[in-house]
Amino acid sequence: MYVPRPEHHFTFGMWTYANAGRDPFGDPVRPLPDLDFHCAAAAKLAELGAYGVNLHDNDLVPIDATAAERDAIARRYAQALADAGLCVPMATTNLFSHPVFKDGAFTSPVPSVRAYALQKAMLGIDLGVQLGAKIYVFWGGREGSEVDAGKDPVDSIKRYRDAFNYLIAYAKDQGYDIKFALEAKPNEPRGHIFLPTTGAMLGFIATLDDPTQCGVNPEVAHETMAGLNFPHAVAQAMDAGKLFHIDLNDQEPGRYDQDFRFGAANLKSSFFLVKLLEDRGYAGMKHFDAHAYRTEDRDGVWDFCRGCMRTYLILQEKVARFNADAEIQGLIADLLADRDQVAGYLAPYSGPQAAALKAHSFDIDALGRRGSRLELLDQLTVELLLGVR
Amino acid sequence: MYVPRPEHHFTFGMWTYANAGRDPFGDPVRPLPDLDFHCAAAAKLAELGAYGVNLHDNDLVPIDATAAERDAIARRYAQALADAGLCVPMATTNLFSHPVFKDGAFTSPVPSVRAYALQKAMLGIDLGVQLGAKIYVFWGGREGSEVDAGKDPVDSIKRYRDAFNYLIAYAKDQGYDIKFALEAKPNEPRGHIFLPTTGAMLGFIATLDDPTQCGVNPEVAHETMAGLNFPHAVAQAMDAGKLFHIDLNDQEPGRYDQDFRFGAANLKSSFFLVKLLEDRGYAGMKHFDAHAYRTEDRDGVWDFCRGCMRTYLILQEKVARFNADAEIQGLIADLLADRDQVAGYLAPYSGPQAAALKAHSFDIDALGRRGSRLELLDQLTVELLLGVR
Amino acid sequence: MYVPRPEHHFTFGMWTYANAGRDPFGDPVRPLPDLDFHCAAAAKLAELGAYGVNLHDNDLVPIDATAAERDAIARRYAQALADAGLCVPMATTNLFSHPVFKDGAFTSPVPSVRAYALQKAMLGIDLGVQLGAKIYVFWGGREGSEVDAGKDPVDSIKRYRDAFNYLIAYAKDQGYDIKFALEAKPNEPRGHIFLPTTGAMLGFIATLDDPTQCGVNPEVAHETMAGLNFPHAVAQAMDAGKLFHIDLNDQEPGRYDQDFRFGAANLKSSFFLVKLLEDRGYAGMKHFDAHAYRTEDRDGVWDFCRGCMRTYLILQEKVARFNADAEIQGLIADLLADRDQVAGYLAPYSGPQAAALKAHSFDIDALGRRGSRLELLDQLTVELLLGVR
Amino acid sequence: MYVPRPEHHFTFGMWTYANAGRDPFGDPVRPLPDLDFHCAAAAKLAELGAYGVNLHDNDLVPIDATAAERDAIARRYAQALADAGLCVPMATTNLFSHPVFKDGAFTSPVPSVRAYALQKAMLGIDLGVQLGAKIYVFWGGREGSEVDAGKDPVDSIKRYRDAFNYLIAYAKDQGYDIKFALEAKPNEPRGHIFLPTTGAMLGFIATLDDPTQCGVNPEVAHETMAGLNFPHAVAQAMDAGKLFHIDLNDQEPGRYDQDFRFGAANLKSSFFLVKLLEDRGYAGMKHFDAHAYRTEDRDGVWDFCRGCMRTYLILQEKVARFNADAEIQGLIADLLADRDQVAGYLAPYSGPQAAALKAHSFDIDALGRRGSRLELLDQLTVELLLGVR
Repeated sequence: MYVPRPEHHFTFGMWTYANAGRDPFGDPVRPLPDLDFHCAAAAKLAELGAYGVNLHDNDLVPIDATAAERDAIARRYAQALADAGLCVPMATTNLFSHPVFKDGAFTSPVPSVRAYALQKAMLGIDLGVQLGAKIYVFWGGREGSEVDAGKDPVDSIKRYRDAFNYLIAYAKDQGYDIKFALEAKPNEPRGHIFLPTTGAMLGFIATLDDPTQCGVNPEVAHETMAGLNFPHAVAQAMDAGKLFHIDLNDQEPGRYDQDFRFGAANLKSSFFLVKLLEDRGYAGMKHFDAHAYRTEDRDGVWDFCRGCMRTYLILQEKVARFNADAEIQGLIADLLADRDQVAGYLAPYSGPQAAALKAHSFDIDALGRRGSRLELLDQLTVELLLGVR
Repeated sequence: MYVPRPEHHFTFGMWTYANAGRDPFGDPVRPLPDLDFHCAAAAKLAELGAYGVNLHDNDLVPIDATAAERDAIARRYAQALADAGLCVPMATTNLFSHPVFKDGAFTSPVPSVRAYALQKAMLGIDLGVQLGAKIYVFWGGREGSEVDAGKDPVDSIKRYRDAFNYLIAYAKDQGYDIKFALEAKPNEPRGHIFLPTTGAMLGFIATLDDPTQCGVNPEVAHETMAGLNFPHAVAQAMDAGKLFHIDLNDQEPGRYDQDFRFGAANLKSSFFLVKLLEDRGYAGMKHFDAHAYRTEDRDGVWDFCRGCMRTYLILQEKVARFNADAEIQGLIADLLADRDQVAGYLAPYSGPQAAALKAHSFDIDALGRRGSRLELLDQLTVELLLGVR
Repeated sequence: MYVPRPEHHFTFGMWTYANAGRDPFGDPVRPLPDLDFHCAAAAKLAELGAYGVNLHDNDLVPIDATAAERDAIARRYAQALADAGLCVPMATTNLFSHPVFKDGAFTSPVPSVRAYALQKAMLGIDLGVQLGAKIYVFWGGREGSEVDAGKDPVDSIKRYRDAFNYLIAYAKDQGYDIKFALEAKPNEPRGHIFLPTTGAMLGFIATLDDPTQCGVNPEVAHETMAGLNFPHAVAQAMDAGKLFHIDLNDQEPGRYDQDFRFGAANLKSSFFLVKLLEDRGYAGMKHFDAHAYRTEDRDGVWDFCRGCMRTYLILQEKVARFNADAEIQGLIADLLADRDQVAGYLAPYSGPQAAALKAHSFDIDALGRRGSRLELLDQLTVELLLGVR
Repeated sequence: MYVPRPEHHFTFGMWTYANAGRDPFGDPVRPLPDLDFHCAAAAKLAELGAYGVNLHDNDLVPIDATAAERDAIARRYAQALADAGLCVPMATTNLFSHPVFKDGAFTSPVPSVRAYALQKAMLGIDLGVQLGAKIYVFWGGREGSEVDAGKDPVDSIKRYRDAFNYLIAYAKDQGYDIKFALEAKPNEPRGHIFLPTTGAMLGFIATLDDPTQCGVNPEVAHETMAGLNFPHAVAQAMDAGKLFHIDLNDQEPGRYDQDFRFGAANLKSSFFLVKLLEDRGYAGMKHFDAHAYRTEDRDGVWDFCRGCMRTYLILQEKVARFNADAEIQGLIADLLADRDQVAGYLAPYSGPQAAALKAHSFDIDALGRRGSRLELLDQLTVELLLGVR
């Protein structure tokens, strides 16, 4: 039981298993990765049961590589993947590490930086397509500010939209079979990042020239940093038909971006996330965008990878149990029951029905006195999670 | 200077100046308001320079009033407003105080509650239109959960949308000249509220049958509770043409909903908010959705009202000064300058230009070394705010 | 299994099971309690397995009762407790509900309020002692401010200390066998509350005339509101010999005070709390300072009480399992092993040993490369919690 | 006006002006500093009006330097300081950057790491004394955990205390004229750091063998990360006679450690901090533990340094104005007035006075109705800060 297999569609970012453990107050604790390591890691991940590897352009190809160097690297890595039986379902552009992006990329006030960001993103898309990616993620980590005087927020959002309109047009013009997934984050490394939540990204997408090419890539840690309910954010994306990809990890609210192993911080919220993905038949990749604690050596990194997948599968089995639990399902059915036969009022608007509804008499005090048994329902959920039910 | 006048469009909610000062741990400290008080308050607010009063249905009319009682109350209050020279620019429905709404209104799992909420909202819209309101706000304070097992989030969002589609159809069918403004809040009084940010509301609006009738009513305190940048949220709403109304107050991040006097917590963020509204020509109401500290008697409430408006006007004058400050504007212009003549690359996508851009050589190390002088720009802003510049 | 019994020392505050479910945006959903209810509730709590009931003076006795009324009420309630086989292990004073306390009690700037607060606390202590309480809790919910100009923080802390010095002297003078336990909270209902954390209370206690009479009463929700690690706070109190009482409940960080059922929000942190209490032999009361969701009727309240105790007992059994798990204990032992035989350097200071230590050569790069296997240890903990180990 | 001079006792950490601007998602944007730079910087800081420079051992001396190298570096730097007319008032040990400290230093589970940390701290104290430091700061940035299973919190606090007892004994044994100042932080770079607030440090100090040698070094950003009121924390330290040093900067609550320029985030809180330090005659160093935005080159760093000091001096002048403002002071005096002549009850405890107080009749309803005029007081404060008063 709980053994990951390719059909589970578990993926890891190159920057996750290869994370060297540097933080704002400490030096790397694990070796910086090179191409040899990534090729070996592909085999290791396949052995652990993963389906694929995701990457930023510069995870694989140095920022100053020539086109020839890039192609040589890409070919060698593609071969390693093929040998391992893995694929690259998602790719993305690093628009944040180099000092050129210190005040943003697509929203930089500096025109040359914006132009360079477009160039780098086009080349990154080319690379992603070359490696077979069907989803291209955009995380605008530096698209924000500490100094509100220095970046007009309305102009910045317009510049941000101009960039996506441009890149969508580019991908179409090239005939690429790839869709974009936008990833929100509220802050860090900037004081405030534009379009800080998955919801804000959904609002923004609706203003694009062609919203159909663009969805979202919600990340557990990013919504949780702002204290928001991650399953609710994912539900809104699903409802809008925009859940193109997902980043699984864990995080405690109100602090630095932790990118913990999936399930490491909040078992209950992780359970409801898995429930949502499983119950609604999410068919995309389950990408673990996390990294091992800085206390770990490379063996600990593989412990970390195993743990992410294993916890998902344990929770998946809990979901099945929850859905089959008669007492739990009975409580839920009671909550939803139409005891007063009002379904007719809840149909789409019609004048006569609305008139009837306006005239209807409700005994709201009686309705207000009915208990919902949510303490019991939640307690049963907790006991199911703890394995004593 | 700093004297509020009707043309400033400052408004107060009935629940703000009449707030009795109850909190989760304490009893009311000021008298509960009655109709006489509200009529007298209209004259007082006019004297202070306000433009209008906003209200929930039950701020004015008891929840169990008959239609005849409602009309008598509405007529008497309309007369008091007319005598004072005030209007009601915005109205809303109380869908949260009565126990019937304890698990939500439009998203309640209980069909009877959802039906009653529709009825109450239709009657509330009728009352708002009767009093002349042009904006109808919806704050779904209880549209959320503590127990994720008890409320499927995708179904809940669908139910939420059904309600707005219904009510928009109703308002159109009645020929009402009123638009809806949705107000987000992340939590409190529920553990998590659906569509928790202004951005999420913008994403949701895009899924309505007729998005044109619906905009947002962002509130300083609500975005700030989640640690988000309020001017950025307002900018996104403006960019989307959806800033239909605004709730001004103040708040410290990461705690209970404080609804402090405008400018009481964060002078810098308040300044950039006023700057955004003034620079972009926001023409709607400036509604103070706040209340006096619980330490205050009713005289203190009028101090509070005066302070909200006065701080806005002081900051408005600071904005003019900022926009006229040559050193500040020079620093901003330097940031934005197209030193490398790349504007051509930033036009809408064309194949040839994209090809040219892909071939362009950027000296990114040199670009990365350029300083932005944002410490200086921010310091000048601070000194301007402190009145020493 | 998991059946609470009196020897578990589970207690409930009167304000918890009798909570009527009012919140800042909603009216009560359950009946306001009266003395009959409390007498009946004692029998119910005994049936559920509780050990005792805690109370504020005004939970039992109205604030304006005469001495004769107070005694009659206390006698009747004491009889009900005796009939049920329960006791009152802890009592406290309500220094926050009445408007007189709107700017604090012991730290109010108003001398009359400070004097009245002392009077009320003395009478409350008398009542607590009369009912048999051995611990008297002080939660200074209004001892703070929104307006820093209105309350000098150094003077306020001095006034706070004056009050405790006075009341400790009073209790000694009366010959009472009771100790004080101070409860911290960062904010709500005030913008900021003085001495906002358990750690701050420990620092404050050290400045009292007689620190031995005073310990702390940490509450899960209160430390968690500030995003702090609750077991760490409890550990500091234990280390200082100051854990006189504890308030168990649950809470999500960075929001309003939720007082959820124990274990409802964070299973992992709840587990480590139970582990700390059990491993260190905490002998005091386990007080559930929480209340049922507002969706519940009174049946739901008993579900809530059952759930608090049951989750504690489930986690207690997990602790035994964790302590007996050879793989887990092996990982911990490996972490702690003195592989380099340096124990001698870790003894209390001596000049010669310090000189030797200064001259010792450490291979810090080798030490830095050792992995800690904490990903694995944490994953095993998670699996144990989920009941799959 | 607002010109910093040495008598203001403004100091900067080496790691602040020399910060290269690396963050978790980006490479350095400014050159890594060398000894030449630090020597030149001393002259620059003197020119700007600073009083001194603070340092970690490894800011100046590489971690692998020999004793002879260390002495040569220290001599050269001491000469540069002397030439500039600056001093080193505070020094500290870097116990967090090297991988050896990845799971803490004094609280590491690994005995060899704890021994090495003691060695490094002794050598760091030697270096600090050599350079003339009178205060030695300890910030235990890695003394915490992500995995509660891996670090018993009671044992960890004991180990932490053992280290301070040892080092205090060492400093005394050496005859050093130096005191220790402990600096708290709630999280980052660890999930949770032990003794997370200034208050917790005060509680811990009370458990040391010799508490007199140890005070605190509160930092604006660190308390603010947890949403706590920084002036309140400083007030508690002052009240306890433990404010040995202070770290000035700025921060928004509930996110990563920002270390912004003093006053950059919260003008009102910064004002009340300056007011507290000035009104209470704080005589220690005012250390700016902050760094320039990553958008800045080295010129921007000097803008940053100038801004920190200038904002302090502007706020200092506002404090004088606040203290001299008759309307403001009148409101405060009204709040504090003993209108009911109860001062006698507020003296230290005596049996007869307590008996009299218990029998006193208070009109609490009348007291509860009195308004405090705190809205007005706060508004006048805001207007004074904005320079329009």
